[in-house]
Amino acid sequence: MQQVAQQLWQWLEEAAQCSTTQWQQQGVTRLIATAEHRALLNQLKKWMKAAGMTTLIDPAANLIGRYPSASPHAKTLIFGSHQDSVPCGGKYDGILGILLPLALVNYFHQQGKKFKFNIEIIAFSDEEGARFPSALIGSKAIAGIFDGHELETTDAQGITLHQALKNFGCAPAALLQKPPSYARDSLLGFFEVHIEQGPVLEQAGLPVGVVNAITGIERHQLTITGKAGHAGTVPMSLRQDALVGAATVIKLFNQLCQDNPALVGVVGKITNYPNGVNVIPETTELTLELRSPQDAKRLEARAKLYQQIDQELTAQKLSYQLQQSYEQAAVECSKQLTQTLTRAIEQADIPVRELFSGAGHDGLAMHHLTDIAMLFIRTVDGLSHHRDEAIVQQDLISALNVLNNLCKLINQEQQ
Amino acid sequence: MQQVAQQLWQWLEEAAQCSTTQWQQQGVTRLIATAEHRALLNQLKKWMKAAGMTTLIDPAANLIGRYPSASPHAKTLIFGSHQDSVPCGGKYDGILGILLPLALVNYFHQQGKKFKFNIEIIAFSDEEGARFPSALIGSKAIAGIFDGHELETTDAQGITLHQALKNFGCAPAALLQKPPSYARDSLLGFFEVHIEQGPVLEQAGLPVGVVNAITGIERHQLTITGKAGHAGTVPMSLRQDALVGAATVIKLFNQLCQDNPALVGVVGKITNYPNGVNVIPETTELTLELRSPQDAKRLEARAKLYQQIDQELTAQKLSYQLQQSYEQAAVECSKQLTQTLTRAIEQADIPVRELFSGAGHDGLAMHHLTDIAMLFIRTVDGLSHHRDEAIVQQDLISALNVLNNLCKLINQEQQ
Repeated sequence: MQQVAQQLWQWLEEAAQCSTTQWQQQGVTRLIATAEHRALLNQLKKWMKAAGMTTLIDPAANLIGRYPSASPHAKTLIFGSHQDSVPCGGKYDGILGILLPLALVNYFHQQGKKFKFNIEIIAFSDEEGARFPSALIGSKAIAGIFDGHELETTDAQGITLHQALKNFGCAPAALLQKPPSYARDSLLGFFEVHIEQGPVLEQAGLPVGVVNAITGIERHQLTITGKAGHAGTVPMSLRQDALVGAATVIKLFNQLCQDNPALVGVVGKITNYPNGVNVIPETTELTLELRSPQDAKRLEARAKLYQQIDQELTAQKLSYQLQQSYEQAAVECSKQLTQTLTRAIEQADIPVRELFSGAGHDGLAMHHLTDIAMLFIRTVDGLSHHRDEAIVQQDLISALNVLNNLCKLINQEQQ
Repeated sequence: MQQVAQQLWQWLEEAAQCSTTQWQQQGVTRLIATAEHRALLNQLKKWMKAAGMTTLIDPAANLIGRYPSASPHAKTLIFGSHQDSVPCGGKYDGILGILLPLALVNYFHQQGKKFKFNIEIIAFSDEEGARFPSALIGSKAIAGIFDGHELETTDAQGITLHQALKNFGCAPAALLQKPPSYARDSLLGFFEVHIEQGPVLEQAGLPVGVVNAITGIERHQLTITGKAGHAGTVPMSLRQDALVGAATVIKLFNQLCQDNPALVGVVGKITNYPNGVNVIPETTELTLELRSPQDAKRLEARAKLYQQIDQELTAQKLSYQLQQSYEQAAVECSKQLTQTLTRAIEQADIPVRELFSGAGHDGLAMHHLTDIAMLFIRTVDGLSHHRDEAIVQQDLISALNVLNNLCKLINQEQQ
């Protein structure tokens, strides 16, 4: 696998060139239905064909490569991830989940190895939602859950998604029919390799880990209103300081999440008025984001959070408005597929570490179509969505071995 | 005193017209050495002359009115406050401390009443520092502590204070000599009437209160640095969240001030980076302002604050930079003058309430020249530096009675 990993490393470097920004200076920027997307697809098609795959581009600008089984009635195992990046992102987020299975299929092809199932690799056109308001455009289209109204949304230049896809050579009208791209019973599942984007595997000293669920997410907007006043003339006992209220909420929310291993939460954004060195803050706005792979725990935590906020702010004589602005349920990975993946890791002599994905992924859409499973690869310093996003080259060998074992195991499971 | 108070109320309304902004819509804006300053001084001179006073404008654009004693060797009691406002300020802050004693002197003059001391009323040209970088220009000049370098500082239009004073018809070169405007032993003290700008008297249901000290102030700039990260992928236990650190500091600083009646403190300003809903805050900057009428308590609190910040942020694995950006020592009011003032309040059948001034005043400069004392007048809702700044008309009668009593008492003390 040493050579396969080297090939893969080279492809990753080449793919990073398909970017509006020079990646060494500013990182990779590659959005859906752009010249960079086109350039990447041209490369991918070339590499796929050399790996014995057929290719097609669907109406949502997804590229699908197929490594057919010898058997005409074989089912299909889908690999893949998203081709797009955030603006000035890294060179592994997404693209690694396309190129890693592709490097393996290329290896299979060189070995003349065929399976009792078809392998397909999808380069989803958009997952990040960096060009149009909605994310997961590619995987939603594949899964048959694409909302036709999204075609009329526009990018920063006022171009609709519909027009952008047409300009890209696709026929987006087909998306209005919302057909899933596959018959459910033709599929063995969807399997995604992705960088962890967090520090867990690095801290554990492991190259890869098994994802058991993709987190559920909810966001809230809290506006606390007190009373502005001269910072010298209002006695402490008569103050209604909105920022002190905000600090109380930040602390209690942090503690709530610290106390429960199934939760992560953050107050990422705070805005304070009038924000003067000698003025008692009158209004403080903050965002609360809560994530959990277990929806029940998240809902329980939310109820507790709302109750604690009310109790604390009322005690401080502060008024507030609190409203939920976003919610996304958690998605569990398939127990069966994950079990097979676990065995594949064991066979590669790697200790098995389960973790949940705190970030969203294409699996959020794909689970509407088929079973999903995910393998995380260690990320240096947990850093992602950044030009310095990095992986350990040696870990690619581990991941390739795991995927190779996985294909063998699934092959054995087939009739 | 009913009629005197009515006269005073009318003057206050007229003085509010001397403003670049229409005060009903935007409040009063009257800066040093402007056409509005000139318009006000013309009014004041007219009213002073009608009250039997002589007037002069000094090199710092202060207007000084003198109601001479019958005795040629009499000492002088100075009343006064600042004529200037903050931009879009109220119609009582400052000007009330000029017009209230003026209304009383006018009454003395009508009664043909003379004292064993001269009464002077100063309309200080600038206390707020709203036009030029430095504040207290007027009272510093009178007290002989004016820094000549300030003449070269410029306003927003690039006009130097030197030029502005010259344009106003003053001879600012004289300020470079820094002579106090009075021989110390010719003075009985400086007495300022001012709106409270806070809620203490209103809460206590009192029209006036005795100021025992003008607060000391210190300011600090704190920058907390943690580690940015994806809000979903970094486990709680591995986070270094700068905003959680900031919340801890806000809470502990607030508690420190709550626990000590001699302190007030505020975190008025906070800036958070990158301030995204789903990004763990990397850097949070905040200001800490601490005030106390007792310098020793303030220094003690600062030491404790610094120690607690270090302890808490270190425990949270956050790094920080903390530095003091400003310090102003407290000024105590004269015990003797304040005692006389207390008696004057008692004689007016008003319960005596002592309080400290959390805001700075002309007394900060004047105490370098002579003993100071201050009388606060109740402010509606504690609101100041705002067009809706308001007082209770009836309170003017109380304050006039107190001042009248004060003049009688001081008169009795004179040989």
